[in-house]
Amino acid sequence: MEEKFDNSMKVGILGGGQLGRMLIQAAIDLDLEIHVLDPDLHAPCKSLSQKFTRGSFKEFTSVFSFGLPLDVITIEIEDVNVEALRQLRDIGKKVYPQPEVIALIQDKRTQKEFYKAHGIPTADFVITEDHGHAIQFYEFLPAFHKLARGGYDGKGVKAMHDVDDLDYAFDEPAMLEKMVDVDKEISVIVARNEDGDLSTFPVVEMVFDPVHNLVDYLISPAQISSEQAEEASRIAKKVAESVGLVGILAVEMFIDKTGEILVNEIAPRPHNSGHHTIKANATSQFEQHWRAILGLPLGSTKSHKLSAMVNILGADGYQGDALYVGLHKLLEKEDIHVHLYGKKTTKPARKMGHVTIMDDNLESLKEKVKFVKETLKVIA
Amino acid sequence: MEEKFDNSMKVGILGGGQLGRMLIQAAIDLDLEIHVLDPDLHAPCKSLSQKFTRGSFKEFTSVFSFGLPLDVITIEIEDVNVEALRQLRDIGKKVYPQPEVIALIQDKRTQKEFYKAHGIPTADFVITEDHGHAIQFYEFLPAFHKLARGGYDGKGVKAMHDVDDLDYAFDEPAMLEKMVDVDKEISVIVARNEDGDLSTFPVVEMVFDPVHNLVDYLISPAQISSEQAEEASRIAKKVAESVGLVGILAVEMFIDKTGEILVNEIAPRPHNSGHHTIKANATSQFEQHWRAILGLPLGSTKSHKLSAMVNILGADGYQGDALYVGLHKLLEKEDIHVHLYGKKTTKPARKMGHVTIMDDNLESLKEKVKFVKETLKVIA
Repeated sequence: MEEKFDNSMKVGILGGGQLGRMLIQAAIDLDLEIHVLDPDLHAPCKSLSQKFTRGSFKEFTSVFSFGLPLDVITIEIEDVNVEALRQLRDIGKKVYPQPEVIALIQDKRTQKEFYKAHGIPTADFVITEDHGHAIQFYEFLPAFHKLARGGYDGKGVKAMHDVDDLDYAFDEPAMLEKMVDVDKEISVIVARNEDGDLSTFPVVEMVFDPVHNLVDYLISPAQISSEQAEEASRIAKKVAESVGLVGILAVEMFIDKTGEILVNEIAPRPHNSGHHTIKANATSQFEQHWRAILGLPLGSTKSHKLSAMVNILGADGYQGDALYVGLHKLLEKEDIHVHLYGKKTTKPARKMGHVTIMDDNLESLKEKVKFVKETLKVIA
Repeated sequence: MEEKFDNSMKVGILGGGQLGRMLIQAAIDLDLEIHVLDPDLHAPCKSLSQKFTRGSFKEFTSVFSFGLPLDVITIEIEDVNVEALRQLRDIGKKVYPQPEVIALIQDKRTQKEFYKAHGIPTADFVITEDHGHAIQFYEFLPAFHKLARGGYDGKGVKAMHDVDDLDYAFDEPAMLEKMVDVDKEISVIVARNEDGDLSTFPVVEMVFDPVHNLVDYLISPAQISSEQAEEASRIAKKVAESVGLVGILAVEMFIDKTGEILVNEIAPRPHNSGHHTIKANATSQFEQHWRAILGLPLGSTKSHKLSAMVNILGADGYQGDALYVGLHKLLEKEDIHVHLYGKKTTKPARKMGHVTIMDDNLESLKEKVKFVKETLKVIA
């Protein structure tokens, strides 16, 4: 570790969404100069970055020229031009997470093969090259058919329950992944710096709405046994070490009905399952990311209290300039913190912000979650 | 209180220093559009404000034209053009703190007369119009001679121990204020909103270095009796109510050797004695300021733990681009939080940032304070 901290370095983020915005918020106290590349002139990072470049983070030329005047380059989205990042690294820029880590994660098949090669537990899978190939695996069902590349937020994924479903199988490189009999979904955010130091945040549980089968809220720590929590943390660290990560990594996992923990997806950047850490932990996932990639010591991940996180989504039926109903009522309560993302317009289910809720007691925490969900609405 | 929060309003801050910067940091989660007026193009607020106007906050024209396109105008420094703020208020802008409150505080004599009129305890004083007038009050000594206007950070104040010192008395409107036999110096930050709701932060104590007689660090809560703390809080609320404040007010007080509490100075804005609240309290003084002036409910001021605040000052003998020595060592410790103010160049005693230190135990808190002061240096 260096003795003098020189914060005159220039740092770039590919992507200007809410994750970038919260990265910038965490960078202010270190007085870092942040440049952002994003195609959207109304991106949440726009007004907070020292320099905002309008351009694609997917194209070689825009990424390479964005990175040239910078010292350190990082991401807030995986879907970026890896070749440009490789070349920037090769001419001496610090690029974290490393281009190889991003490349690995961009391809779901490579990712799964990697888990297999490194003994990281994950649901069984088979590679499929095209439709004709996929339909041969009817005995492997029930499974999810997932595109190798470009799938995002449920896109590029089809549920295949029986042989008839295979009629709709992808005609592109994909994989069939065995359906897991899921008991719980959990996530661990792990950080690793250049020295190889590792640190995990407490395990988070995604609590599902039993009626709509959607994530209702997240809770930290997960309501699982301490053995399961240790195992989940151990797996997250193993993934970070196996890929040689410098930065932070969200490791989403299933606990199946037999109690086995399986890695589902990973993301080498700040993640929705770590938003509560801004208020509820000694160090936030965003600050931890900077510490990891700037050669600083990793911070304590200790929780102050039990916490929950609720996403603030645009209400159904409203589109246009956002108005927040019920915010006053929320702000009257202690230990409820509202984070808006700087998106001027709302639309149904758009992520407009999040609320972190803290309490010493699980039952009153859940009551506060219910209150928040019933009280706050984003309309237009 | 309004039911819908419309954050499309435009908010202006007069002054672009570190207080403005921390106000902006607190405004990000409410997604407020912040405009800043400051003469210095390298002001700490420069890169974080949506619009930065280079200009004087002391001149009528620049303040008035800065305020015209805005909905709400506030300050981070008292030394502003009050007449422009009055006219902006008269054409329908929300100006908080109110121009009258700022005017009252700009003149130390009006301030003292106000305390007297409202039964707010403060050191005895006499008004002096010029040098010839001042020297008549030799029987009033020992006292401080303070200029009515423009005094700042020790400037405009002279200690008058005996009649010979009066040779150096100010030849301008001033006042002589009896020296207090000080036991402790404390501060209370009080918030008041448009509805008249009041809320105080826990009392803070300025701990002095016995050798250099300078503030060494601040500690929250002050190490005083609960009766004294209640009395200090009551006095702070009384000041805020008496002036009819909307916003926050730092009330600096002395406790004299007899245990009496006397108001020393007040500042209607975020204050050095509230910086620890960013990390150590449920709501920070900066968030509380926004809540108070935007018609939102005041937040809980509860402390998470004992806390201390150390200013990060430029080291003697160094001038130029700032380098932070020892930052790594600080960041290795839990419950030590560093806030840098975005000043690229350092000079002796320049306020470059602050460190908030937390602990459950007073002795280990003091040890951490010692560690921070010995470890972190700003050089060039």
